[in-house]
Amino acid sequence: MTRVAVDAMGGDRGPETIIEGLMDALSSREFEALVVGDGKTITPLLNRHGSHSDVQVVHAQQVVGSHEAPGQAVRKKADSSIGIGVRLQKEGRADAFVSAGNTGAIMAFSLLTLGRLKGVNRPAVAAFFPTKKGFSLVLDVGANSDCKALNLLQFALMGSIYLSYTFDKERPEVALLSMGEEDTKGNDLTLAAHDLLKSTEMINFVGNIEGSRILDGVADVVICDGFVGNAILKFGESIVEYVSEAIKESVNSGLKAKLGALMLRSSFQKLVGRMSYEEYGGAPLLGIDGVSFICHGKSRAKAIRSALHSTCDYVEGRVNEHIREQLRELSY
Amino acid sequence: MTRVAVDAMGGDRGPETIIEGLMDALSSREFEALVVGDGKTITPLLNRHGSHSDVQVVHAQQVVGSHEAPGQAVRKKADSSIGIGVRLQKEGRADAFVSAGNTGAIMAFSLLTLGRLKGVNRPAVAAFFPTKKGFSLVLDVGANSDCKALNLLQFALMGSIYLSYTFDKERPEVALLSMGEEDTKGNDLTLAAHDLLKSTEMINFVGNIEGSRILDGVADVVICDGFVGNAILKFGESIVEYVSEAIKESVNSGLKAKLGALMLRSSFQKLVGRMSYEEYGGAPLLGIDGVSFICHGKSRAKAIRSALHSTCDYVEGRVNEHIREQLRELSY
Repeated sequence: MTRVAVDAMGGDRGPETIIEGLMDALSSREFEALVVGDGKTITPLLNRHGSHSDVQVVHAQQVVGSHEAPGQAVRKKADSSIGIGVRLQKEGRADAFVSAGNTGAIMAFSLLTLGRLKGVNRPAVAAFFPTKKGFSLVLDVGANSDCKALNLLQFALMGSIYLSYTFDKERPEVALLSMGEEDTKGNDLTLAAHDLLKSTEMINFVGNIEGSRILDGVADVVICDGFVGNAILKFGESIVEYVSEAIKESVNSGLKAKLGALMLRSSFQKLVGRMSYEEYGGAPLLGIDGVSFICHGKSRAKAIRSALHSTCDYVEGRVNEHIREQLRELSY
Repeated sequence: MTRVAVDAMGGDRGPETIIEGLMDALSSREFEALVVGDGKTITPLLNRHGSHSDVQVVHAQQVVGSHEAPGQAVRKKADSSIGIGVRLQKEGRADAFVSAGNTGAIMAFSLLTLGRLKGVNRPAVAAFFPTKKGFSLVLDVGANSDCKALNLLQFALMGSIYLSYTFDKERPEVALLSMGEEDTKGNDLTLAAHDLLKSTEMINFVGNIEGSRILDGVADVVICDGFVGNAILKFGESIVEYVSEAIKESVNSGLKAKLGALMLRSSFQKLVGRMSYEEYGGAPLLGIDGVSFICHGKSRAKAIRSALHSTCDYVEGRVNEHIREQLRELSY
């Protein structure tokens, strides 16, 4: 049975939400959970849900704050829920780690403790972007601020393998985020990456796309460097938030609007749900020699549940083995 | 009186919209307009609005398509409305050019025909992003796919001067778009640019911001390379469009929602208006030895009107002279 370490202390909504999500996940799928965090806080929360033979508490006396510098966390907080949660894999006690905590710290601990998969130059953080057709996996969204073409090629391969073995996508379509859709457009990095992607048969490369096309869902995987990916992810999230707030504001602002609000509420919720980056739970740090799933800090129980199921899919789909094998075949 | 050449053939909504915007602009501000485009199309449209002594038609027998490659346009369409519109400045017949046409072609013709302002290494395209506090000017959003730190410094200076002399902003606050807000975070480019911006007294540098903070309006000017700027601009626009469509869809989807729709319509329109990148009309190509304002292809008459007024502000505020002077003072 897959053994997943869960960071009970991560996320803006506190341990209750994490544990609620975990219990929900366990009710529809079999896996073993190691709940990492402050024992005194977690145990009573778990007890509320009755006893569960597949759940075990692992005490962690430290917590990494959501704004703490990752470097400092790594130096001073080895016994945090993130530090221990990641380490459980190294100790052979867990197959994966899931956290809605400090993204930088999860990356730093994962890299330091688990290292890279053989053949991977740079691990990448993936994120699911909702599209008109479903979703696209965008990577890197923040692990690498400067990239080389070879890194982008590896991102393309890792993203494709992930979708193949956990979402049953056959030969996922890969697009390169660029400036201009023509082959000859872009910056130095994307021009070089374009050629590399095009000449690599293992990748189902469909060409360049501009930022405006991401939401059209023209590709299953969208590749970019971490700086650009981070900028569009964060800017995009802020727009969605802004729109949600503006809708609320509009609804509260006048009598006419207020009257309509009740009637439109269900439509709103559907809309915001569709745009929400929580929908797909977490996304993996691809390329590390282990499994770390990163959830949004604002994750609700439903997102945690999805992330836990995705994590089991990842482990059971043996994604890392496939990455290792296929990278060996790449001649670069 | 300021003489503005207007591209009647640019924009997705056709010459009628451009001319409607022009007439509207002329009704509240004095300037001379040279309307460039197909005479046979334009003259009857102008006549509908009665005679106007400040309007003159300049015939152009070619039109640059919205998806035409800029390089090809420059080679084969010197007598297009964009080609001629830009050239009127070189011939001393106009002080500025406004177009909602092919952005790449406007840039290419402007650079080729007018050249750069003395001291400017790379001209940049600016765009107004709506924020919670009003707007921020973001640049570059597409002229330069690869930048050096010095380019970003010049963008910061040009953006500041533009806002100072046309929007009466005293010492506009400048932020650098980066990954992480700490001084030590970012990619090679932003790390170098950060140091340069910090040590340049002429710029009111407030530090790094992440993509998530742009809409908060934390700075008047936000600096980035053209690749990143292009990606966030286009991705952002597509989200706004997506949300607008989804709202429409929701409204049309069910009886309950339909009932509320009429009541909420005014709120929706306010919301979409606030998020619309048309609100501020056009934005200048900063750093060329002339004045070219680029409007969104989807501009309505109101946006064309705003753009024409902004163009007059730019000319009358002698922005280019100030850029030239202040660049001379920069010791880099």
